[in-house]
Amino acid sequence: MTEGTKYTHSFKVTQQVYESFIAMSGDRNPLHTDAAFARSKGFKDKVMHGNILNGFVSYFIGECLPVKDVVIHAQSIKYPLPVYLDDELEFRAEITGYYESVKTYEFKFYFTNASGKKVAKGDIQIGTLI
Amino acid sequence: MTEGTKYTHSFKVTQQVYESFIAMSGDRNPLHTDAAFARSKGFKDKVMHGNILNGFVSYFIGECLPVKDVVIHAQSIKYPLPVYLDDELEFRAEITGYYESVKTYEFKFYFTNASGKKVAKGDIQIGTLI
Repeated sequence: MTEGTKYTHSFKVTQQVYESFIAMSGDRNPLHTDAAFARSKGFKDKVMHGNILNGFVSYFIGECLPVKDVVIHAQSIKYPLPVYLDDELEFRAEITGYYESVKTYEFKFYFTNASGKKVAKGDIQIGTLI
Repeated sequence: MTEGTKYTHSFKVTQQVYESFIAMSGDRNPLHTDAAFARSKGFKDKVMHGNILNGFVSYFIGECLPVKDVVIHAQSIKYPLPVYLDDELEFRAEITGYYESVKTYEFKFYFTNASGKKVAKGDIQIGTLI
């Protein structure tokens, strides 16, 4: 884990992921649950909650790094394009900073869809626990 | 919905919320699932995933505003203090900006725990769909 180290992981927004997100958050906004409503707003189908991708970020930090004793201090995300049910997303992250004095790493990340379009991008700051 | 409008909502990190988050994200990092591990790192119990709070942010935007045709464009969050299972959190948000030309609102928010301590804070930018 040094500056410049890159990571990739594949995620899929399955029906199970989508239903678990709704069970967790309670967010049944019609854009996310009513395909006809979403289409009336110009989308091709109901739009997946952006924070499903933040769940994937949680998985990346908690499960994909070579160390387990880490905690997210801060994170940000932007959603330039919608994500739909069953979309397969490629996640790419890179360590952009390491601050040894505070045992803190910074990452930049983005998600692309099957068309190679960037659907989300952001930053994560984590600390390593002593 | 004008600049300065404030919102509050109560959330609880129940066992059901916690389990649904794990089902959604797959993040079983020991800090979040192994109380003994978390205690060995100085926490009082297993630490809840920070992105559970982003699920609550999703609920706030999707369900608590007077309009339903909204979508999150960007969001950020910092986690100054840990959240534990069964914590009852108060969420407070304020509209800090409205940009009519792009139909965009900005919010600042924070969550406090039962001791009144700020456990998370951040920003949300949403667009209203035409």
